[in-house]
Amino acid sequence: MELPSKLLENAVNEMSQLPGIGKRTALRLVLHLLKQPAEQTEMLSSALTAMRNDIQYCKECNTISDAEICGICSNASRDKSIICVVEDVRDVMALENTGMFKGVYHVLGGKISPIEGVGPSQLKITSLVEKVKEGNVAEIIFALSSTMEGDTTNFYIYRQIKEYEVKTSTIARGIAVGDELEYADEVTLGRSLLNRIPFETSIKPY
Amino acid sequence: MELPSKLLENAVNEMSQLPGIGKRTALRLVLHLLKQPAEQTEMLSSALTAMRNDIQYCKECNTISDAEICGICSNASRDKSIICVVEDVRDVMALENTGMFKGVYHVLGGKISPIEGVGPSQLKITSLVEKVKEGNVAEIIFALSSTMEGDTTNFYIYRQIKEYEVKTSTIARGIAVGDELEYADEVTLGRSLLNRIPFETSIKPY
Repeated sequence: MELPSKLLENAVNEMSQLPGIGKRTALRLVLHLLKQPAEQTEMLSSALTAMRNDIQYCKECNTISDAEICGICSNASRDKSIICVVEDVRDVMALENTGMFKGVYHVLGGKISPIEGVGPSQLKITSLVEKVKEGNVAEIIFALSSTMEGDTTNFYIYRQIKEYEVKTSTIARGIAVGDELEYADEVTLGRSLLNRIPFETSIKPY
Repeated sequence: MELPSKLLENAVNEMSQLPGIGKRTALRLVLHLLKQPAEQTEMLSSALTAMRNDIQYCKECNTISDAEICGICSNASRDKSIICVVEDVRDVMALENTGMFKGVYHVLGGKISPIEGVGPSQLKITSLVEKVKEGNVAEIIFALSSTMEGDTTNFYIYRQIKEYEVKTSTIARGIAVGDELEYADEVTLGRSLLNRIPFETSIKPY
């Protein structure tokens, strides 16, 4: 695909650096911007630059926040002794949407992934271990995705905190509510059997 | 989806203005940028702004170009008397890739679409009619997509140029090379029958 303009080519090349955006999609997006008023491109560019340069992370839990301490960590009614370990801010949002968690979060900023060149030092693991060391943490809930990277990260953290007196758990893996058994993969179905719960617990109202 | 930061929210909102990018995809793209070095966001923003503000259109055919006259229009070996009418630069690129066209293009910049609020005055139709009026055009080939908008645009232009001595044609609609008849839609198959060509023509080497 040979583009007739260097300016167009630069824009397409930069756009196609984004995950899931190929050259063809990038060209479609860029041509769309050309048809819109110049202000739209200006606003997009400045919103991206402002975000990248000025965004802050909560000093407590490392989630994206406009304040030094995020709304969750600064909320007195949240239980600071229960920490849910997640990958990024999307997981915080998803868990908050359930309205089921009254503890606080710790955002790692990724998972250990040798393939993508992400080692433990690039993640916020040390500060989590420090919190545990200080002794005010009762439970750590691992809520990373159950991929090899997620399991590796869980295990890496677990080895560093197991010497301290802290309960550790992971979120339940099982058949999604409303799903048919026959379409579930066997690993999930197997785990749902292995980690079965007392019937009385399952019918307990929230 | 409530985002924990105004900066993040602005970036997501601007990103999701792009066609085919919803809020969720926008958030994924924006979080990706946060994980990359700040230079990447900087380069994306400046490439988009530079393109939007400084891009030029060929004075002859209205295609995107870094020069006043594009490479095709300034090529002496191209036949200026055959003009292929297309929607945008992607169509020019697709047709150039075939290596089958030795004339020049005229890029309209869109199609007449009352639904999207695009009227004839927003397209480069007047300059095309002017070219025909000047009398140096032998043939106009319509190569817009065969949608209602494309057909409307073709017809709108045709009515303005039919009084002048110029041949008009449209690219052939038919079964794609290599496609099975049974999977073709009936309109296309019907047209391919109606517009059948002499067998001798079909086996002619290029």
